[in-house]
Amino acid sequence: MREVFHQSLEEVQSRLVEIAEMVTVAIEKATKAFSTSDVALAEEVIAGDDLIDERSVSLDELAIEILAMQQPVARDLRIVVTALRASASLERMGDLAEHIAQLTRLRYPERVIPADLMPTFARMGELDVDVARQLTELLRTEDLVIAESIRNADDEVDELHASVFDKVLGARTSEDVTAVVDATLASRYHERFADHAVGVAKKMIYLATGDWTSHGDEDPEG
Amino acid sequence: MREVFHQSLEEVQSRLVEIAEMVTVAIEKATKAFSTSDVALAEEVIAGDDLIDERSVSLDELAIEILAMQQPVARDLRIVVTALRASASLERMGDLAEHIAQLTRLRYPERVIPADLMPTFARMGELDVDVARQLTELLRTEDLVIAESIRNADDEVDELHASVFDKVLGARTSEDVTAVVDATLASRYHERFADHAVGVAKKMIYLATGDWTSHGDEDPEG
Repeated sequence: MREVFHQSLEEVQSRLVEIAEMVTVAIEKATKAFSTSDVALAEEVIAGDDLIDERSVSLDELAIEILAMQQPVARDLRIVVTALRASASLERMGDLAEHIAQLTRLRYPERVIPADLMPTFARMGELDVDVARQLTELLRTEDLVIAESIRNADDEVDELHASVFDKVLGARTSEDVTAVVDATLASRYHERFADHAVGVAKKMIYLATGDWTSHGDEDPEG
Repeated sequence: MREVFHQSLEEVQSRLVEIAEMVTVAIEKATKAFSTSDVALAEEVIAGDDLIDERSVSLDELAIEILAMQQPVARDLRIVVTALRASASLERMGDLAEHIAQLTRLRYPERVIPADLMPTFARMGELDVDVARQLTELLRTEDLVIAESIRNADDEVDELHASVFDKVLGARTSEDVTAVVDATLASRYHERFADHAVGVAKKMIYLATGDWTSHGDEDPEG
């Protein structure tokens, strides 16, 4: 019985890592599609999001089944609760990658954003991909040093997000309104993606330490 | 022991209702502050969000304690899992009300959005307040008819959200870029608020029926 139980917990963890890997692929493709106006790649991300959603639902079902059948306590309980919480965040990260892909498709064959914002979005995209990779590693290894590194990457994303508004607002005359709307939304999606990763990283700290108090400020932007 | 257990479950439910009430007050004040440029009222919302966050963390702690100590099964387990999930959504709804208040404060004494968009935002604000009230009632009564009504209100919010882009994009010449950015973000915040309410309503359907399958499309916008 204990044997079966620990197999279930390992299954929870490996499924969480698998979803994080899928989200990493989604954000890699989405940011590449966004910067190159590759509509076929954008379509792949959009089509792929259903599978992320399904895996997330299926992980939730497994977690709830474990709660009902095995009644875990202490660290085992924290593993299951953390998985429930993390799967919701990963699912939202997948949605945000999909949103970035949808903007690409919506504007195709035009680029979503003007040339002078490209370097900013290229860097934000790079950081989001990096954050997703690190998060996968954190879920796999439970190495909390990675949580700190994710938080630093998120700080840089937040700064870039603020700089997008400055740049857009600076150009008051000839700027195309569509470009302003798109840049605003795209920047927000990138920023939320990294925020969610920070949220999951905090849940991993809870898993390791039992300290739940860092939950409230998941969205440090306010 | 059973007696104590059922008291705990009632405590979970009443705390969830209490947080929903706080979120309702927050969105009422935020949308009023937004439409009247009332910076004092906006400050109240911003200052009040910490309490919503605290209550949400405290509810999570209670839920996890119940899982550990009482090891609920079946419907009792669903109550606890639903509370964990719903508290995360309510906390985000509080954040979104705070975002709307922050935009108001940021632009004060100017209005956040131009006069011709006021009726659209007034209606979106009305719907978000209505959705928060209905959600509180749904959490209190578990009357699933309300879940359907929340979904209808959310559909209307989605339509208004789309119409904001049409209106902003229609005015290509004299539009102030700041107003475009603000309207884009404000509209997105309003839309996400109602989305989260639909998400919680789905969790209540899960609570009543044990059917978890509607989880994946929490964000129907894609």
